[in-house]
Amino acid sequence: MKIAVLFGAQSFEHEISVVSAIALKKVLKSEIVYIFCDYERNFYLIPTDKITSKRFSSGEYKKDKALHVKQGGFYAKKMLGEEQISFDVMINLVHGRDGEDGKLSALLDFFGIPYIGPRMEACSISYNKLFTKLYAKEVGVNVLPYQLLHKGSNEAISIAYPFIVKPLRLGSSIGIGIVKEEKELAYALDVAFEFDDTVLIEPFISGVKEYNLAGCKTDSFTFSIIEEPQKEAFLDFDKKYLDFSRTKRVNEASLEVTLEKEIQTSFIKLYDPLFLGALIRCDFFVIDGVVYLNEINPVPGSMANYLFDDFDGVIKRLVNYLPHTTTVTKEYRYINSIQAAKGK
Amino acid sequence: MKIAVLFGAQSFEHEISVVSAIALKKVLKSEIVYIFCDYERNFYLIPTDKITSKRFSSGEYKKDKALHVKQGGFYAKKMLGEEQISFDVMINLVHGRDGEDGKLSALLDFFGIPYIGPRMEACSISYNKLFTKLYAKEVGVNVLPYQLLHKGSNEAISIAYPFIVKPLRLGSSIGIGIVKEEKELAYALDVAFEFDDTVLIEPFISGVKEYNLAGCKTDSFTFSIIEEPQKEAFLDFDKKYLDFSRTKRVNEASLEVTLEKEIQTSFIKLYDPLFLGALIRCDFFVIDGVVYLNEINPVPGSMANYLFDDFDGVIKRLVNYLPHTTTVTKEYRYINSIQAAKGK
Repeated sequence: MKIAVLFGAQSFEHEISVVSAIALKKVLKSEIVYIFCDYERNFYLIPTDKITSKRFSSGEYKKDKALHVKQGGFYAKKMLGEEQISFDVMINLVHGRDGEDGKLSALLDFFGIPYIGPRMEACSISYNKLFTKLYAKEVGVNVLPYQLLHKGSNEAISIAYPFIVKPLRLGSSIGIGIVKEEKELAYALDVAFEFDDTVLIEPFISGVKEYNLAGCKTDSFTFSIIEEPQKEAFLDFDKKYLDFSRTKRVNEASLEVTLEKEIQTSFIKLYDPLFLGALIRCDFFVIDGVVYLNEINPVPGSMANYLFDDFDGVIKRLVNYLPHTTTVTKEYRYINSIQAAKGK
Repeated sequence: MKIAVLFGAQSFEHEISVVSAIALKKVLKSEIVYIFCDYERNFYLIPTDKITSKRFSSGEYKKDKALHVKQGGFYAKKMLGEEQISFDVMINLVHGRDGEDGKLSALLDFFGIPYIGPRMEACSISYNKLFTKLYAKEVGVNVLPYQLLHKGSNEAISIAYPFIVKPLRLGSSIGIGIVKEEKELAYALDVAFEFDDTVLIEPFISGVKEYNLAGCKTDSFTFSIIEEPQKEAFLDFDKKYLDFSRTKRVNEASLEVTLEKEIQTSFIKLYDPLFLGALIRCDFFVIDGVVYLNEINPVPGSMANYLFDDFDGVIKRLVNYLPHTTTVTKEYRYINSIQAAKGK
């Protein structure tokens, strides 16, 4: 099997995606075709032996083959005509904007390119923290209370200190700040409003237990181990960045069986059917024995490979369970009947 | 100003889009550039004087100039190289799949093409009837009670007869059926499940008053007149189809001023900021003096031009108020610092 890995793009997490892509080289046993999307959203075919972070930071990738996308796949220009880049399936490995907001999913669906990754609708729900809350509540998964603040408004805050301020969209802790008292508020809001016109506030619970679970659905659900991520206060962007290059298995959290089951049940409620076709990681809080969703990562760093015993096997299985949309039959029934009525 | 109209695409409402596009020719005073997306999602530049429904149903459009999309716009191949199709803004006039589900919005955003139409996130909310309900409730607009049914499950129905069965996604009444008693249920479900694996059921209220309001936000809100659509039982696809070719002003519904204001207030709550950049039509029910959202049409048939006094003026104003996303600065800060630490 030939797997294309799509990475980079116009995202604040562009660099994380580059690091994720390099990490996959060590854990995927299939032949990999690397397709890089640069900050300007131009596509390049990167030879697998040239996959180093420096190739991108230096701009050397521009010497590689430029690609364009159209019906059926990615193509490179040739002297005469063009050639299609051959692969069986693509992994969307773009984190943040373009990859997790749904743009690339839409593009791949529109052009009929099979891919592992969240579909557009799933992205819209997980990328927007308000929609994630509404959705989680609807499917019966607990979330922390929240309040939205809009840029330029003077809304009173009804959540007690300490709380977390988050841009409504984006992932990877970008623009997020903990506010312990009023004097820290203005700065935290300034930072968060740089990334979005709406921010979400939720209580900050010191020392809360966090558990990460990744998985996907094929003929049944495949779950990773549950990890309790190491953190100081909370994981900031720099630490998460380093985290994303991981390819080694981590230690399993020691959990009561009932709690483990509850975390898995919450994952299933969130996943099925919205995230079909994707391998996602859900991050949960456990407070007084109750499970709460923190966030859904529909394109987790390095695909959370370090949480699986047989990551390569999971990917190969998932390829056979990608969702398909109902077919639209080409027809001009109404137009033809009007034409006929007109006697033309 | 040169306005490109994008229409057609792989949608059950493809034909409606063709009719909508033809209707716009009569009401837009600007020069129009017609870009057709066929059922196979190939793009063509259609000369404005050849815009007749027969050109598409006969397949003659294939003689027109084939286009491809990439960074910056749509391009046609020339003997040597290619030429960009010039226009100032594009109107997304694709109804249903591709146009209202967010795929084309994503494509246009990804390739940096300015357009009038709902953004991807707005599409995901309005295209999925469950998400529309959750969103409307969140912003303080009433919705009818509902229940979801999943294909293959044997869920008990808790909503009393008569009720309406709707595929979870899609618009324009496709796949929708009224169920008055149990013996009509199986057939209605069969039809709806042909279009989606999930269907939504809501009470059918005979003789309910329906009011349609279109509008958009520029420096302030511009509203159309409020129309009370004519209907028998409820508007089916055939009638809606004919409806979409309308270019004549309709009669304003006679409403109490307070009710008119309440409908406009509900529209504002739904529109701002999610639908910025789009001219949408919201369809409301009024039951015992209370306003309920029925549905949001983010790409209404023929852009609801027949509801506006000065449709051309509204479009020209809206062009100056299209939303912009925050810029992602190209940088390789993390990768460079790692490179530096390695002493390379």
